[in-house]
Amino acid sequence: MQQGIVQVKGVDPTPYLESFNRYSDELSLLTADMPHDPEQITFALLWYPDDDFFDRYPNVKLVASIAAGVDNILACPSLRDDVIVCRNRDPEQASIMSTFALWHIIGHQRNFERYREQQTLHIWKRHPMRAPADINVGILGLGFMGEKIADDCHALGFNVAGWRKSFKTLTNEEIPVFAGTEQLDSFLQRTEVLICVLPLTDETRGILNRDTFSKLQRGGYLVHIGRGDHLVPEDLFAALEDGQLAGAALDVFTPEPLPADSPIWDHPKIFVTPHDASDVRPSAAAANLAEEVERFVRGEAPANQVLKEIGY
Amino acid sequence: MQQGIVQVKGVDPTPYLESFNRYSDELSLLTADMPHDPEQITFALLWYPDDDFFDRYPNVKLVASIAAGVDNILACPSLRDDVIVCRNRDPEQASIMSTFALWHIIGHQRNFERYREQQTLHIWKRHPMRAPADINVGILGLGFMGEKIADDCHALGFNVAGWRKSFKTLTNEEIPVFAGTEQLDSFLQRTEVLICVLPLTDETRGILNRDTFSKLQRGGYLVHIGRGDHLVPEDLFAALEDGQLAGAALDVFTPEPLPADSPIWDHPKIFVTPHDASDVRPSAAAANLAEEVERFVRGEAPANQVLKEIGY
Repeated sequence: MQQGIVQVKGVDPTPYLESFNRYSDELSLLTADMPHDPEQITFALLWYPDDDFFDRYPNVKLVASIAAGVDNILACPSLRDDVIVCRNRDPEQASIMSTFALWHIIGHQRNFERYREQQTLHIWKRHPMRAPADINVGILGLGFMGEKIADDCHALGFNVAGWRKSFKTLTNEEIPVFAGTEQLDSFLQRTEVLICVLPLTDETRGILNRDTFSKLQRGGYLVHIGRGDHLVPEDLFAALEDGQLAGAALDVFTPEPLPADSPIWDHPKIFVTPHDASDVRPSAAAANLAEEVERFVRGEAPANQVLKEIGY
Repeated sequence: MQQGIVQVKGVDPTPYLESFNRYSDELSLLTADMPHDPEQITFALLWYPDDDFFDRYPNVKLVASIAAGVDNILACPSLRDDVIVCRNRDPEQASIMSTFALWHIIGHQRNFERYREQQTLHIWKRHPMRAPADINVGILGLGFMGEKIADDCHALGFNVAGWRKSFKTLTNEEIPVFAGTEQLDSFLQRTEVLICVLPLTDETRGILNRDTFSKLQRGGYLVHIGRGDHLVPEDLFAALEDGQLAGAALDVFTPEPLPADSPIWDHPKIFVTPHDASDVRPSAAAANLAEEVERFVRGEAPANQVLKEIGY
C-alpha cells in the first residue's frame, strides 16, 4: 500500500480524496488531519504547499499539482532534488480554458462592451464589423493549453500564430510558430490580441511589460491567463491609458486573491476573473496522480514529468 | 449593358454601388436618384424595398437581398411571380455570425455576468464550472448560417445538435440532425442553449413561444438571430421570470429599430444588439448579385435562387 497526502491551499480536498481512493486498493490518499505516519507518505497532491512541506514528509518521492502550472510547487523552499514533479494534462481543462480565451477574443472583435453601453442608453446603432480573419491573435506559450487555444482560434477562422521558447511543430501545421527571443518582436508586431499562457519561470517573469505592449498592433487586447508575476501592472495601466491597448482580461494576479483595495478592480478597461479561467475536475487530477504513482511503483518513467531546470 | 437599381432601406448604398460597378463593364448599378429610365432596369439589389418597387420597375427580372434573409423582399406587395429572387451565401458573413452566437453560448456556459457583478463589488469568488461538452446547444435552422454555427460549436466541444424542417445530411455527420415537426419536441428537450437562425415563414412565425420554451432544459438560454416575428416577447418575459430561461440575447425585433420605450431594453436578463449579429461586406453582396445577373444573361440557372413557395 502506497500512502499519499493531499494539501491544496484554499481548495476543498474532499472530492480529490474521494476520487483517488476509488481508483485502486493499492493506493491511499489522506489529508494532514487524518491519522498517519509522515514517514510512510511517499507521494502528494499539491497546490501551494507549505514552505516546510517536504521537511515534514521526508520520504515523498513524487508529487503532482492539481493545476497545469507547477510554479506553486517548484517555489517551495523544502522541495528536494530527488522529488519527481508531475503536471496535469487534462483535455477538458484545456477545452474550458480555450472557451474562456475565445469569449474575450470575440468580445474584442465585436466590441460587445459598446453594445452593452448602447443598451443602457436605449441606442440602436450598428457598427462596421470585422471578421475573425481580420483579427490577429497571438498565443504566448504553446504548451498543452496554448496549442488547444491556437487550434480553436484557427478553427473559427481567426488569424492565429503562437510563440514559444524553442521551436516545435504543432499538430495543425497551418498555425505559424515563432520561436525564441529573436522571433519575439516579429510575433508581437503581427499580434492584436495577445493571450498569455506561459509557464512562470525566471525568463518569463515580467514579460508583459511596457516594451512588449508597445510592439503589439495599436488598440490591441491582452488576455492574461498565465501567472500574476508575468505582468507589470503599472505598464498595463500606461498602455491602456495611452490607447496602445484597448482593454485587458486578467485572471491571475500577484497576490491572489486580488486585494479588495486594488485599483485593478475598478479599471473600466479591465475585466477581472478570480483565477477561474479553467479548472481541473478533481476526478481527472486524481486519476492523473494515481497513474503517475503506479508508473513510479512499476519503475517506469512519469508520463508528464516537469523538467525542474526549465520550470515546466 | 444591363442596368440595375439598388434600394437598401436605412443602409448607405455607396459601397455596394462602387463594388458592383467595378465588377464588369457590361453591368451597371444605379441609385434611384441617379438619372435613369425605369423601363431599362432589369435587376435590383434590395433591403426592405418600397411596397410599389416592382410597379415602378416593370422589367426587373432578378433581385438579390444584401442579407441572407429574403423575407424583406418576399413580403413586398408588388413582387411579381416571374421575378427571380436570389439569396446571398457569404462564408465571411456566416463566420462573423457564428462568433456572435459563440460569445453568447460561452457567456452562458461560464456565467460571465456573475464575474462582472463580482468585479463591481470587488468579490474574489470561484465557481464550479462546466466544460463545453456539458452544454447542449441546439441550432434551430440548419441553412448556410446554422450549419456553420453547428460546425463551430462542434469544433469547440459543445454537445450540439440541429433541427430543420426536412432532413439533410450535414458535412459533419457527427452532428445529430432532428427533422420535421415530429422531432421538434425531442430536439427541444435535449437543448439548453437554443440558437434561432430560422428563415421567417408562415410556419416559423411565433415559433419562439411559451410552449417551445417550456420544453427546453430548465435554466436554458436563447440566442435569437432569426427575425423578430419568430418570437412572442411576452412568452419570453414569462420564461425569464419563471426561471425556465436564465437569459436571452436578442438581435432581431418587431419592429426595428426597437422602440426607445420598449421594456426589452431594460430587462436585466436580455442582452440587446441592433440587428448586428453579422453583416455582409458590400463587395461580397455586389459580387454575388453580379454573378447571378451574368448567369441570367447567359441563360443559366441562378446559383442561389430562393424558392418563393417555401420562403427561403
